[in-house]
Amino acid sequence: MTNDETRRMTANQECLRRMCEAEPVLVDVRPAGEVLPGMLPNLILTSGPALAWDGYVGGQREAIIGGALFEGLARDREEAMRKLSSGEIAVDGCHPHACVGSLAGIYTASMPVFVVRNAATGAYGHCNFYEGTNRRRLNYGVYDAGVHERLDYVHRIVAPVIREAVRRSGGIPLKPLMARALHMGDELHSRNTAASLLFARELYPHLAAMSSHDQDGVLKAVQALTEDHYFFLRLSMAAAKVTADAAHGVKHASVVTAMAFNCRGFAIRVSGLGDAWWTGPHATVQAKLFEGHREDEITWMGGESVIAETVGLGGFSQAAAFPLQAYQGGSPEAMIAHNLEMYEITVGEHTDFRIPYLRYRGSPTGIDILKVVATGIAPVMDIGIAGRDGGQIGAGIVRAPLECFASAAAEYQRRYGSGLPT
Amino acid sequence: MTNDETRRMTANQECLRRMCEAEPVLVDVRPAGEVLPGMLPNLILTSGPALAWDGYVGGQREAIIGGALFEGLARDREEAMRKLSSGEIAVDGCHPHACVGSLAGIYTASMPVFVVRNAATGAYGHCNFYEGTNRRRLNYGVYDAGVHERLDYVHRIVAPVIREAVRRSGGIPLKPLMARALHMGDELHSRNTAASLLFARELYPHLAAMSSHDQDGVLKAVQALTEDHYFFLRLSMAAAKVTADAAHGVKHASVVTAMAFNCRGFAIRVSGLGDAWWTGPHATVQAKLFEGHREDEITWMGGESVIAETVGLGGFSQAAAFPLQAYQGGSPEAMIAHNLEMYEITVGEHTDFRIPYLRYRGSPTGIDILKVVATGIAPVMDIGIAGRDGGQIGAGIVRAPLECFASAAAEYQRRYGSGLPT
Repeated sequence: MTNDETRRMTANQECLRRMCEAEPVLVDVRPAGEVLPGMLPNLILTSGPALAWDGYVGGQREAIIGGALFEGLARDREEAMRKLSSGEIAVDGCHPHACVGSLAGIYTASMPVFVVRNAATGAYGHCNFYEGTNRRRLNYGVYDAGVHERLDYVHRIVAPVIREAVRRSGGIPLKPLMARALHMGDELHSRNTAASLLFARELYPHLAAMSSHDQDGVLKAVQALTEDHYFFLRLSMAAAKVTADAAHGVKHASVVTAMAFNCRGFAIRVSGLGDAWWTGPHATVQAKLFEGHREDEITWMGGESVIAETVGLGGFSQAAAFPLQAYQGGSPEAMIAHNLEMYEITVGEHTDFRIPYLRYRGSPTGIDILKVVATGIAPVMDIGIAGRDGGQIGAGIVRAPLECFASAAAEYQRRYGSGLPT
Repeated sequence: MTNDETRRMTANQECLRRMCEAEPVLVDVRPAGEVLPGMLPNLILTSGPALAWDGYVGGQREAIIGGALFEGLARDREEAMRKLSSGEIAVDGCHPHACVGSLAGIYTASMPVFVVRNAATGAYGHCNFYEGTNRRRLNYGVYDAGVHERLDYVHRIVAPVIREAVRRSGGIPLKPLMARALHMGDELHSRNTAASLLFARELYPHLAAMSSHDQDGVLKAVQALTEDHYFFLRLSMAAAKVTADAAHGVKHASVVTAMAFNCRGFAIRVSGLGDAWWTGPHATVQAKLFEGHREDEITWMGGESVIAETVGLGGFSQAAAFPLQAYQGGSPEAMIAHNLEMYEITVGEHTDFRIPYLRYRGSPTGIDILKVVATGIAPVMDIGIAGRDGGQIGAGIVRAPLECFASAAAEYQRRYGSGLPT
């Protein structure tokens, strides 16, 4: 083994160790404007590498306009677009602001966000709230009276109750809930059923103590916490964000520390390659569409929930979540095959996230760009599918495009020497 | 096909239909003495076919004596044994009293029981409360100050809160929770983790409404509901009891409607053969014992929780519950093989209980004694393991002994003609 290769392996093991040792703890719920680094009253955050305003198209463009209207930065669509063009309303990606976006991933300053602290490092990650069961949601490129009303409800009614319960709890360690949910049919990306119930259980004693003075609010919060079992997704994302960030910036490391979509394509960041994004086209998707929808409606409007896959969850734990068949299609055999394949492109096995069907083997964790290039095996990701006219129209599996791994690998070689696996 | 065979198949399909169409609903919590048919103040119910008092040995004998002391029917052990010998304190099996016993399965008149109504038939089934996390419990043949204290706590503190919440709910349909739990790693016998959380979720809104006037009680009830995830077992058992009972008493049917252990052996009841028990010896067990325990400590002190297997759950849904490896040993491959084997001896597939790993195939339901005899495949059951000195020492898998199926099949042939599968 060359010295370069030894340095790479040591660095990658360090990344794996930091991912495994991360201890994400939900400590608070606060407005984005107060806690996200660099957040401004006129700034809208959206998924994927930042584009110039006129680079945003389709549903992601609609979602940004919707965010401007929701935040009251413009009176109408035309004014919003004018201010976005002039820069009076600014747009940026989520990742530089210590948060991750679900689908289009719109953050505005007033939105409450989960504040998750990595107890191992003291760093913070954030995610905003799940909007609810309606398929038409702001993060799926829709903004209308119904979407506004639901956002307002979540922010005004649900979030303050959750905030008080979280504060009373003194902080809720998320990793034990996530590890347990993997034994209960979740992969913590497209399925969060068990994790949502486990999280509700943690809050419940505090909610019960609160219900003497706010019974109605408590009942509404309980409803939001458990009504369709996606509540926890945003906590899984915030936890994955602080976990992946812990592994970022290790010299010589060829480990992926973020993956993201925007409306133009797919991109990755690599631990040893700074904050640059390595981009590629969109990939083909194996989708299961909701009744009445067709393949040709599928569109891309961003997405950073694949931070889950970055830390060994989601597509990297499919064999923990056979019930996903019902939601995103596929078969148990294919899920097992996907899951096993991911061990070929990762640094090692997670020490806490374990998969019962695989005899409690740790999930494949820490995507090595050089292994992806050498094997031609692309990461598998579980995602929600957006429709051309806005809204969610299904769910499915995508494979990351290989191009971004190839260009990152080329830069890795340039910077650190040959670095290719022997 | 002979006429006999046609009649048998028709009758067995009727049993399967009744099992699938059962709709168990938790409607109340009440003292055993008020709701169990034939329950008397001086009667103690215990698992398995009833024996004469001097037939009870070991832990099951100890459990009955403990029940007498707990109920205040005797001042001490000697008086209890004297009264049990004289018949002043009576003993009977659980099944004739519309309830089922977990392990030794002790019921006394003052104990609160879950009242479960089959909405499809109007019939009732019952089960008493899980005692909690202590491995030394009355139903595992132990009665001491700690056991007394915990029983008293469950009966005096927990049960009344659950009762009020259930009454406020207007009744909680259990089958939807059970169907969902099968998608979350439970098989609803030796694993009830998800079902316990789902049940807690159903109660939360009512508990929240109650917590203004009884916050302490609510918090204790929530703790009991969720502390170790076996709370739901007793609801699963009561639901399975009304479900199995619905299929009992169908002429020509060769379907098992109850399986039970007592300290002397194993027994089954058959739909078309009246209320007689067909008995056999104990079977060998594949156990995973808790740290510090040995195979030669394993003892039998009764058990009727295998009512779960009778209706397609437990061992018949092992492929839904790979996490059981951690509790009862075995491997995913063995669980799948067991589960598939059970299709060979059952009438059909459950229409609501479905197994994700088996592509949502319905669980094998309705054990046909003639298929068991013809194939030599014995039902697989997930059970808790009791130790010679009392208490739980592990968990594992048992196979029912074939003798009871053979003697039931002989009676079936005598009564209904040849009846053997062609």
